[in-house]
Amino acid sequence: MMYAVIMAGGSGTRLWPQSRKDRPKQFHSLTSDRSLLQETVARLEPAIDADHLYTIANKSHVKPIREQLGWLPESHVIGEPSARNTAPAVGITAVILQHKDPDAIMLVLPADHFIARAEEFRRILNTAEAVIRDDEFLMTIGIKPTYAETGYGYIEIAAEYKEIGEDQVFWVKSFKEKPDMETAQKYVASWRYVWNSGMFAWKASTILKAFEKHAPDIYEGLVRFRDALGTAKEAEVLKEVYRRFPNISVDYAILEKAENVLVAPADIGWSDIGSWSALHELLSFDGQTNVVRGRHVGIDTYNCLIHGGARLVATVGLDNMIIVDTDDVLLVVPKGRSQDVKKLLDKLQRQGRTEYL
Amino acid sequence: MMYAVIMAGGSGTRLWPQSRKDRPKQFHSLTSDRSLLQETVARLEPAIDADHLYTIANKSHVKPIREQLGWLPESHVIGEPSARNTAPAVGITAVILQHKDPDAIMLVLPADHFIARAEEFRRILNTAEAVIRDDEFLMTIGIKPTYAETGYGYIEIAAEYKEIGEDQVFWVKSFKEKPDMETAQKYVASWRYVWNSGMFAWKASTILKAFEKHAPDIYEGLVRFRDALGTAKEAEVLKEVYRRFPNISVDYAILEKAENVLVAPADIGWSDIGSWSALHELLSFDGQTNVVRGRHVGIDTYNCLIHGGARLVATVGLDNMIIVDTDDVLLVVPKGRSQDVKKLLDKLQRQGRTEYL
Repeated sequence: MMYAVIMAGGSGTRLWPQSRKDRPKQFHSLTSDRSLLQETVARLEPAIDADHLYTIANKSHVKPIREQLGWLPESHVIGEPSARNTAPAVGITAVILQHKDPDAIMLVLPADHFIARAEEFRRILNTAEAVIRDDEFLMTIGIKPTYAETGYGYIEIAAEYKEIGEDQVFWVKSFKEKPDMETAQKYVASWRYVWNSGMFAWKASTILKAFEKHAPDIYEGLVRFRDALGTAKEAEVLKEVYRRFPNISVDYAILEKAENVLVAPADIGWSDIGSWSALHELLSFDGQTNVVRGRHVGIDTYNCLIHGGARLVATVGLDNMIIVDTDDVLLVVPKGRSQDVKKLLDKLQRQGRTEYL
Repeated sequence: MMYAVIMAGGSGTRLWPQSRKDRPKQFHSLTSDRSLLQETVARLEPAIDADHLYTIANKSHVKPIREQLGWLPESHVIGEPSARNTAPAVGITAVILQHKDPDAIMLVLPADHFIARAEEFRRILNTAEAVIRDDEFLMTIGIKPTYAETGYGYIEIAAEYKEIGEDQVFWVKSFKEKPDMETAQKYVASWRYVWNSGMFAWKASTILKAFEKHAPDIYEGLVRFRDALGTAKEAEVLKEVYRRFPNISVDYAILEKAENVLVAPADIGWSDIGSWSALHELLSFDGQTNVVRGRHVGIDTYNCLIHGGARLVATVGLDNMIIVDTDDVLLVVPKGRSQDVKKLLDKLQRQGRTEYL
């Protein structure tokens, strides 16, 4: 059976001040009335039901997850005792799923992304499932790039491929870190690179074998946790093995080393909503120049993202400006500088004004 | 004796959203911890005490005046039954003062201006008093212009002057409406023009004679009010004569027509704080590039006015921007467009969103 594991641990710092430490991006309604987490779940329906849905996030985020997915069984919301990136989270959920269903296929999906074409997305998931149902492959979902983005990692595809229905699924040649602009432009022009979306599919048994081979230090903890599963010591052992887990992504710990990694290139209107500027881009279709949430009055205001709350935002003579108005913080930044929101957080941290983080 | 009459009826629309219909500019703390009204009063001390201080404003503003000048006798806060500009307000207070003291000298002072050099200001008031103590002159305080401002009216001075101590006090040749830039530049270069500050000094008896001669329609109402003063019908008659008063400034109704108008040129660091940009200019001394009230964190933020409330204002990559953050409205406008705040109010009015005015 297919299970979805939603990785809800992102921090979303570049969407500050809406996204906050205690309530990051995935718990906010940015693209619709539902939160990004709720959208991620809704996008899977009807393929995945409550019994086949798991989430994992830092323990401090268990509460907002329960609020937003109230119908999910308590045991399906896994709280990480400490922050350790995606490799340990994938390993722990793989252990849980395999314990429940030895043939479990797991989809790994970030909670805080946007996908415009949900139907096409589900079609790609079916393709991925078909690839791994009878074979020991590690599938990644690659996004066909639409421009030279320097904020994403890239996957280089090999010449070999499998045909699955109408889709071609390629062997992965290499993973590339976020490139500079020149390199990104070469990648996009070559048609041999796709964006690494952080979405994966594999059998729980396959990824656990990969941990054993490529990340034996993590695998040792996973075995200890497996042995404690369902016993009174489960929570205590989870805490203990987490303390020793390295802080490492599944890409780096496993996928870059494994030989059996495939990629399904997808054209699904995907964005990681990595900045306010990115949110503006994905919401400003239909020739709309301003994207407004909340109340606004403007004179000569063009190409602005106004993400407000209860108050009236009044603007005169602005172009390409982002205004984000929350209960306790107001942000004003030109679109071209929206990546630098992170610098504000660094500054606040240095100043000890942690109540705003 | 000298009396001060503070005209507290301004609407201050260009300082929206801090300045609001029910609580305009003069009731707000913009330049210090005290409101502009309180600053205007404090600036007169010790020359004027509570017994010699009067205020007049629309009746809807009587409450904030009483709140801010709690020590002022109730009868010294005059509420206008309807909005009629400065001529009727000057006439009515002249009647009240003359009734109390036939030799009353009245200073007429707007409540919402800024004066950097209070001591020099008081010296000029003494000069003005000396001019009118024994003569029937109408004195205006003119401001020596420091740049070609197109937002002020100008007073053209004549060649004839009187010497009063170290000051020269000139006959007025003409009053000029707000000029275009070219004209303003000529005015300033000529050394024959000063800004019309809206500050005046005259004996109550002198200005009433001027009303009789130059504005007989208003004078007729003033006489009716004088006859009702101290009777049970006073409030009713005030309401009735106000309804018939024309909506006209004292400059236009009297000063532009009278022959006995003098002007005392003053160099007192004056500003009418006519826009957020003007407020920024007058507060940004000492090479300070940003003027901040409230909490702020910024990266690459220069020459900005950040007039905040309780919340944190966070900015990246802004230059010459004005941000005004109030409880229910947030304004973002480049400095060069701050005059256009009025257009926002017009738009809100047209949209029927009067709760924001």
